[in-house]
Order: sequence, then C-alpha cells, then structure tokens
Amino acid sequence: MQRKQPIPAEFDLIVVGAGHAGCEAAMASARLGLKTLLLTINVDRIGHLSCNPAIGGLAKGHMVKEIDALGGMMGLWADAAGIQFRILNTRKGPAVRSSRAQIDRAEYMRVVQRSVFSQENLWVFQDMGAAVLTENGAVSGLRTELGEVFPARAVLLTTGTFLRGLMHIGLEHFSGGRMGDPAANSLSASLRELGFDLGRLKTGTTPRLLRDSIDFSAMQEQPGDDPPTPFSFRNRTVPLPQVSCWLTYTNERAHEAIRSGFDRSPMFTGIIEGTGARYCPSIEDKVARFPEKDRHQIFVEPEGLHSPEMYPSGIPTSLPFDVQKKMIRAIRGLENAQIVRPGYAIEYDFVPPTQLRPTLETKAVPGLYCAGQINGTSGYEEAAAQGLWAALNAACKLLGREPFLLSRDQAYMAVLVDDLVTKGTEEPYRMFTSRAEHRLLLREGNADERLTPVGRDLGLVDDDQWRLFTAKQEKLQAVLEAMHSIRIRPDAATRETLESIGASVPGKAVELASLLRQPQMDIDRLAVFCPELAGLDREVLCEAEVQVRYEGYLVKQEELVAKFKSLEDKVLPEDLDYGSVSGLTREVVEKLSRIQPRTLGQAGRISGVTPAALACLEIHLKKLGLS
Amino acid sequence: MQRKQPIPAEFDLIVVGAGHAGCEAAMASARLGLKTLLLTINVDRIGHLSCNPAIGGLAKGHMVKEIDALGGMMGLWADAAGIQFRILNTRKGPAVRSSRAQIDRAEYMRVVQRSVFSQENLWVFQDMGAAVLTENGAVSGLRTELGEVFPARAVLLTTGTFLRGLMHIGLEHFSGGRMGDPAANSLSASLRELGFDLGRLKTGTTPRLLRDSIDFSAMQEQPGDDPPTPFSFRNRTVPLPQVSCWLTYTNERAHEAIRSGFDRSPMFTGIIEGTGARYCPSIEDKVARFPEKDRHQIFVEPEGLHSPEMYPSGIPTSLPFDVQKKMIRAIRGLENAQIVRPGYAIEYDFVPPTQLRPTLETKAVPGLYCAGQINGTSGYEEAAAQGLWAALNAACKLLGREPFLLSRDQAYMAVLVDDLVTKGTEEPYRMFTSRAEHRLLLREGNADERLTPVGRDLGLVDDDQWRLFTAKQEKLQAVLEAMHSIRIRPDAATRETLESIGASVPGKAVELASLLRQPQMDIDRLAVFCPELAGLDREVLCEAEVQVRYEGYLVKQEELVAKFKSLEDKVLPEDLDYGSVSGLTREVVEKLSRIQPRTLGQAGRISGVTPAALACLEIHLKKLGLS
Repeated sequence: MQRKQPIPAEFDLIVVGAGHAGCEAAMASARLGLKTLLLTINVDRIGHLSCNPAIGGLAKGHMVKEIDALGGMMGLWADAAGIQFRILNTRKGPAVRSSRAQIDRAEYMRVVQRSVFSQENLWVFQDMGAAVLTENGAVSGLRTELGEVFPARAVLLTTGTFLRGLMHIGLEHFSGGRMGDPAANSLSASLRELGFDLGRLKTGTTPRLLRDSIDFSAMQEQPGDDPPTPFSFRNRTVPLPQVSCWLTYTNERAHEAIRSGFDRSPMFTGIIEGTGARYCPSIEDKVARFPEKDRHQIFVEPEGLHSPEMYPSGIPTSLPFDVQKKMIRAIRGLENAQIVRPGYAIEYDFVPPTQLRPTLETKAVPGLYCAGQINGTSGYEEAAAQGLWAALNAACKLLGREPFLLSRDQAYMAVLVDDLVTKGTEEPYRMFTSRAEHRLLLREGNADERLTPVGRDLGLVDDDQWRLFTAKQEKLQAVLEAMHSIRIRPDAATRETLESIGASVPGKAVELASLLRQPQMDIDRLAVFCPELAGLDREVLCEAEVQVRYEGYLVKQEELVAKFKSLEDKVLPEDLDYGSVSGLTREVVEKLSRIQPRTLGQAGRISGVTPAALACLEIHLKKLGLS
Repeated sequence: MQRKQPIPAEFDLIVVGAGHAGCEAAMASARLGLKTLLLTINVDRIGHLSCNPAIGGLAKGHMVKEIDALGGMMGLWADAAGIQFRILNTRKGPAVRSSRAQIDRAEYMRVVQRSVFSQENLWVFQDMGAAVLTENGAVSGLRTELGEVFPARAVLLTTGTFLRGLMHIGLEHFSGGRMGDPAANSLSASLRELGFDLGRLKTGTTPRLLRDSIDFSAMQEQPGDDPPTPFSFRNRTVPLPQVSCWLTYTNERAHEAIRSGFDRSPMFTGIIEGTGARYCPSIEDKVARFPEKDRHQIFVEPEGLHSPEMYPSGIPTSLPFDVQKKMIRAIRGLENAQIVRPGYAIEYDFVPPTQLRPTLETKAVPGLYCAGQINGTSGYEEAAAQGLWAALNAACKLLGREPFLLSRDQAYMAVLVDDLVTKGTEEPYRMFTSRAEHRLLLREGNADERLTPVGRDLGLVDDDQWRLFTAKQEKLQAVLEAMHSIRIRPDAATRETLESIGASVPGKAVELASLLRQPQMDIDRLAVFCPELAGLDREVLCEAEVQVRYEGYLVKQEELVAKFKSLEDKVLPEDLDYGSVSGLTREVVEKLSRIQPRTLGQAGRISGVTPAALACLEIHLKKLGLS
C-alpha cells in the first residue's frame, strides 16, 4: 500500500520554491535519482501561473520545446492544460515560428501537482526557506522559517518574486510574494550574509475581469489552430476542449485616463525602485514612452474553461485602482467590465547573475544554485529552462559527471544562461529570437534533433520518448534521401503544375529538393510529384522542408559556428590570475576576474573585452601550455 | 452576451470574507434582491475549508439541514462535493441522529465559486477590508486596504481567523490569517475605534500527511453509508464517487512524544493568549487534561478524490515540528507517514457577541453585522448558520420587514444565536445537541417542516424547493393518517409475525400506530402489515415513524414550549431604563443594560437574572402597559 520512500536523513538537492523553475528542477533532479526536497510556502499553489494564463510565444515556445526535447516537463504540462494552441509567425521564416498556448490555470496546477506528488525520490514540504546553511563555505543544508534544518548536498533557489516582495497599487503598498502570498524576507538576509550582492527588480500584472461583464461582440475573435499542435514531441493531441481569445485595443480616452493617474503612479513618482522589464512594460509605461501611438493591443484571454475571470493581456498596471477602472471602461468591449482583482506591480530582490557560473551554481557558495526570476529573468519559460539547467548541473556535480553545458548554437536555453552569467542584466531579462546569433539552427522543429540525444545521455529521456525520437529521425532521413534521390522529369503534367503556380520549369530532370527550393513551392505542393510524402507525419515533412529549402543558409550558419568553436573549446582555468596576463587593461582584468568566463568564447562576449584582449589571453594560455 | 449587472454606486450589503459565513450570507442577500458585494483577500480561496475536510456531525448536521430548509446553500454545496456520507447515532434517539460528510476540498471551492460568480445581484472583489465607515453613528460603507471606498447600507463582517491572526508552531510564530494567507490588521483597529471590545481566541489544525506514506492496512476502514444520504432536502443522490476513512489511535509512545514537547508548546508556555475550544482541543491539551486515557481516536480522512494528502482528524497541534513528527510516527499505520504541512495554532481577535442584538447586528453601530468565528464560534456549520441569519436580518431591515428571529424550540441556529448574544462566550463556541432544551423537536428529519415555510415567506425558498416540500408533507400526512386509520386484526398471521420478533399481540384490532409504538417494531417491520408503506420515500417513512413512536414525548415537549412562550412573547422595549425597575439588584441592572434582551424569555437566560428579577420586570412592563 505504501509507495513513498522514507524521508532521507540528507537530501541531495533542496529546491526552494515550486513555480516553473522549481517544479521543472525538482522533477528532473528526482528523475535522475537525486533525493530531492521541494519546499513551498503553500502546497495548494504549486505550479501556479502568477501572471498571464499562457505558455510559449516567440522564443519562449522554442524553450518549451527544448525543455521537452531534453525530457523535461513543461511541454507535457502545458499540453495537458492547454485550451488554445497557435503556431505564431507561420508566414515568416522557420527559425522564428513559435508555439503558444492558452492555459487553464486551475488545471495546470492540478497536473503539475499530480506529477510532483507521484514522482519517486521527490518529497514536498510546506514551509518557507529562511537561511542557506554552509560548512567550510559550501552548502550543507537549509533552515526553514519553522526552524527545521534539512541537511543537503545542494540547494537551488527558485524564489520568483518572493524575496522581500513588495506589491504596489497606486501609492498603496504591501509586503507579499504575490497577491495573496507572504514575502520571503529572511532568505534575502541570508543571501546578503553569504556575501551576495542583491539587486531590485519590478514586474507587474493586469487587472482580472469578470467574464460575464465583457461585451465580446465588440471584439475580434481569435480562435486557435485547428487541429491544435501540442508542445511536446511526445504528444500527438491535446485533451481539453479548445476556446477563443478576443482582441481589442486601448484608445485615446483610455490613454487620457492612464495619464490622469501618472501623479499617483508608484513607478513615475519614484516609489518603485526596482527596474521593470523593457519588453513587457506596464500600460502606463507604454503610454508615456510612445505618446505617438494611439492604441495598444489587448488580448482578452480565458483564465480557464470554467473560470469566471478573463485576463486582459497587454495592460499590466500599478496605477491607482480608480484609474484602472477608468482605463478599462474606456476600452471597446470593456465599457461595463468589472474588475475582480486589481492589477499591481511587485518589487523583489534578485541575485545579479554574473555571480553565477555557467552551471548556474553560485561562485561564492559551492552547492548553491539559482534559477528563474531570482536571476533577473522574466517569464515562465525562461524560469523553467533555468530550473532544468540548474538541476541537471546539480545532478551532474553530485553524480561526478561533467557539467551540463550547451553552446549558444545548440539551444536558446544556452543563449539565456550565457547572456545572464556573462553580461548580467539590469532589468528583467526576456528571451527573444534576436538574442540568438545562430537562430536558424535553433528552430522549434529541430529541438529534438538538437537535444534529445543529450537528454538521453543524461538519463532524462525515457525509453518511450527515445523510441518516438529515433522513429521520427528515421522517417526524416528517409524523406531527405528521397528528396535527393527522386528525380522529376519536366514532362507535360509537371510543366503544367509548375506553371500554374508560377514556378519555373527546369530544363531537365531534377531532384525533388531542387523543385522544393523554388519560392512558390512548398511541401504540400511537392506531394503532387511524390504521392508517398502525403501519408507522412506533418512534423517530419515540415522539418524536411526546412532542411531542404534552407540548406544553403544552414550550411553557412554551421560554418560560422565552427569558426567560433575553437574559441568556445578553449577552457580558461578557474584560478587564472588575469592580473598576470600581459597586455590587458585594468578594466578588462577587473571584468574577467569578476565574471570568471569558462571559455575564451565566453570571455569575448563580456562587454569591453576586445579582440585584442582575447589575443592576449590566447597567448597567455599558450604560454601555460593550455592551448 | 453580457449577463452581469453594472456595479451599483451603493451596495445594500457588503460581506467581508468569503468563508462559510460569508458565502452563505452573500448568496442569501443577493437572492433576496440586495445588491451585495463579497470582498475576499483571494478569489482563489473562496469557499476554502480551512480545517478538516468534513461538514456536518452531531448538531452540526442539524444546522446544515436547517440552512437547507430555509433555502440556504451549504447542504447543496456539501452534496456536490461530498465523498463520504454517514448518518451518525443511527442506534440512538431520533433527536440526535446527525448527518456528516467528508468533502473534497478542491471540489468544494469549485462549486462554491461557481455559485457565487453566477449569482445575480452579487459582485466579487479581491481586496482586504480596512475600515468600517459610519455616518451619524450608522454604517455608511467600507474602506479597503487599497483605499477603495464602497458606500453601503449595511456591512457584515465574517472575518474568521483573520483579524490580527497570529500562527504558532512551537515557539515560532508568524502573522497570517491562515497558513498561506495574510492577516487583517487594519480592520481590528477600525473596530476598536468604533468602540468595540475585542477578545482573543485560539484554534488549531492538524498536520497533513502524504497519502502514499500511510499504511492503511494497519488501520480500520470506515466506509460511508451505502447509498449515501444527501444533506439537502432538494437532493436524492450525490454526484461524486464515495471513498473510505481510516481509523487509528494515539498510544502511550505518541503521548510520551507529545509530553516531551510541552516545554516548547506555545499553549503551555503562555505564548498563546487566546482561549482555545474546550470541545475541539489540541492533542497536547487532551494528553495533559486526561492523563488516564491511554489512547485517542484519529480518523484519517481523505482531502479529496485526487488529493495526495490525508487529514488525520483528532490531533490538531501547535507543538514544535520535530515533536509533531515524533508523535505521528509513533502511531499505528503512520510509522512512515510524511508530514506535507505542519499543524499549527492560530490566535485571532473576536467581537464578544454580547455586543450584538439577536439579529446579529451590533448594538453600537446600526447596519454593522457580525457572523461566524468573529462572534466567538468554532465550526463551518456554526459560521454558515450565522451568515445566513445575519444576511436575512440585514435584508429584512433594509426591506422594511420584521426581523428574522427564530425561537429556541424552532432551530439549533436560534439556540446558537440566543446563546451567543445572551451569554456571550469565553472560548470558541461549538454547537451540541445538549445545548438545545427542546432537542426532540429539533430533529434533522423535520428541519424542513420547521423552517421551509419560514424560508418561503422570506423569499429564499424557490418554487422547486417549495414543490418538493409540499409534496413530501402531503405524503407524510397521508402516512400519518394511515397509521391511525388502518386497523390490524390479531389474526393468525399477525400473531405469528409479532411473536417472531418478540412483540406483544394485541387482544383486539389496533391502529398501525399502536403496533409501531412497540419497542421491537420499526417502520420496515410495519410494512408487512401495510404493503403500501414499502413503496414510499424513506425520508417520509422515517419522519412518520418518529412522529408516531415519540408522539407522547413530542406532545409533552410542545406543552413545555407553550408554557415558556408567554415569556418569549413579552418584548422588552429597547430603551428600557433598567435602573428604574424597582426590586432589581445592581448586578442585574448592569447585566440587563449591557445585554439588552429582546424578550423577557431572553432576560431569564442571562446568568444571574433570577426568577424574582423576572417577576419585577414583568410587573414593570405591566405598569408601562406593555404586558
């Protein structure tokens, strides 16, 4: 009858916080056999979506796919609770196509909690982390607010917005980690005592509206894709009924209302000290910074299949509540909308991430890891990616394996972590496709090709996932081979078909691949010439299409990667005394000493480290016999 | 598309708090047409069961039936979320038979939230009450923590344990209204400013255990009744699958563990100032007060159909967490049990209820009502009953009707309210059947007969409920008539049947009723003599059986009620100057002036008010021409 193992005397890893970073981390750690404790302030809120009820989107969908390809959870959970799926940018290049889903908030918590509670090697306890305990400078455990001491070999902090959280609505403010949850104040103090610099950031959320008070007939309906495409490479379908979002806009009258509250805005009056996200600004920010824009888009998103509330995405605000009401009611379709929960901003402590190694382990305290908003990021997907990254590294370290490190041409997750630990961040960091210099290589469609073998090596990809992956790869290879082996002769029928779509007719027999590369052609049209294609998985066909059509670009991009690879392969010793490297300016020495780049490549991405400085470093390495 | 009415400029009633008292009150108020605002700290927690996952039980089941009979909600909600139903005391007298159900905690919140959000005239807003606003001494509205001012004609406070809530586990303590929720501090200050005395009470809850870590094979299974009997007179069946509870016991080893924590108990070291519930004591209290008892019962209750947690009912505790663990693991079946959430005690402010009128309106501030734990009670059902009572009275006042008052022979709710406002309470007040002097009249089975006509007059009983009620009453009358009109002759078959169960054989033809009154007889056995009975509703038959078998007692009890009724009918003027009543001692004058009893009957229940004093009062009333 009993299935749960006894609580260990010492945990391998304690994860503090059960949001997106924490749950992803805890699952990975436990699945790799680490005895893992997940500590949460409120068991009922495990897996809570604190902000908008959606997962994915540009570059974020990519990271969900990457997490999934590695054997992680977020894609599975989102599929189980998704109520609208869309692939964005279908008309743009394949690199920027992204998946996004609306999520049933209550269902998401249920599926996450089900996973967490049924996972072997994973224990859940409701209490608040109070202090990181160390012995000889390295992590030895965690003390909670209740005074419990949990010995542990490693601790991962995924505290989200909870560290000294302070919520603002107008000129009113309250302590709290999130509306309805208490702030974590002791842990902040503990980090300072351990010698960490802490910064202050700010984020915000929108008012929530009563569904029955919204006039949807005055808005533009936005249905999802039919059929929905799941996030996970392991899923073919999704279980929940699918629903629509609704599109409306702010207008001059709403902007006027917003401006009328500027003198009581906690942001504009200097009450909020934390820096907000440039790319996910509050509506008052948008109105102030773009006075020429006469409207801003609002997606009115369902909070769930059975929720009485809707989430007006695009208007996070910390304006006084009377202003929030005035603004809302100026908007088309929201004239009679009733606010059930006010929007608010929240300030919180973060650990500027240049204090972390590329493994997300802190430099100052071996065994202590940080992931998610505590590292200065914004977004569920950024958090989950870091949670997975940190947990995998904790596991690798404890199991005596090489660190889990991906390069910037392998994954958005790698771009994210490399940016954070190399450059730090002054404001909530959000992922964009433009942050990846090799983004044509980092497609959603090849996330499995890029990462599933890595996940398999790590032990996170189970047999079922591996079988699905290898079967897909075999099919893909077969299609690619067919593209190059099947030749089409320009007979009358071919000629007619090609001319009808405005494609040019080849003078002699050509490979299927060559036909496909014509701009007027796509994989569906190609099926006319090769009926066998029509029966194959769409997933396989789309990936084959990309690999064939963009072959030239892909080759070039890979050459570029190879060129830089020599730098990425040159590992800098951890104890390197940069002061003794001749030719470096004092500024460069200071920066290199602080960041402690792992490789010459990473060193080159530190702002202020010039090609000349890199050359000096390379010479120094050679002298040391390391290059 | 829009169904929700616009938010009114002024509310009729603002209900502060969305627990059992608040939700019951808000629904009743809105259904009677009052424009009602339900204010809650966290919309997601509306309808949360803060303590054990069960509704009903001795005297409490009675109140659920009474609420239902009046047209209230709790019975419907409990039926919708119930996962085990039992009728307790089936072998005892009909007066003390009580219904009890295990509740799926998550589902209960869902059904309550669904009701609340779909109710016309009811608005929900997430914010914390900060101050009761008055004009000329009477309620004029409410100010929230966000600084919102909601004008209102009446305000009902149902703040549960949130007023200056302080949680304790061992010698650690934290501010909070409930684990995971913030405390309400401003409102306490506002009440003091308005001149209210506030007292301090304490309650507690048990640690929650991981289901998979419990060895159920070492415990005694306790299934529910099959088929389950719903609470509501409006339901015939319940929708959810039914599950078992499990019975185990503390033991000497557990008691030793408990005693080892006495020196760090917040109760025994004087840290907790509030008074705890005598009848729902913590396990450390039980062990300290009953050293001779070698074990205490623990019902291990499911938290829900899909919850990973179980609730060990009977061991609320605020002992240090290490002691909680030691105690749990000493218990049979819990040897490896893992605590997911620690038990804790909570202290909170309450409004000693002698400051209230029998309508639950405060004496000091017209338009301000209090219901639930704020009045010093304990229990979901006590809270819901008061919520309904207060809301009905607020409605009656605002609609210019007579107050909603029931007498002690009409309902447990009336006993509850009369006890509170007449005698006050020094500790959390819990309902018991023994508190009702006329308890044979206050059966679950006749709650509808007692109260549904009242609810119909009030407008809370809808047509469907009224039809069901009148149909049942017609059937009941028919059965009762049959009992007295059908005569059974002592023929050979009758003789044989009666002798086989040891009943005496009448010498001549007798009424069915007379047969039924024999102790060996019951309604099922009676059906042999009157096959028509077998086809009737069990509910009707059981009630008929009680009315026939206990006819003599019921008549006597009603005579007793009639005897006291003259006192209950004598209303004391509100402005009566007790100092001018000749013959009263100073103590009696002081008490009467403070309590302001509504009737001579209520005056007689104030401790220290003697029959002699009552006689003086009666004479005084006669002098005034009021009697």
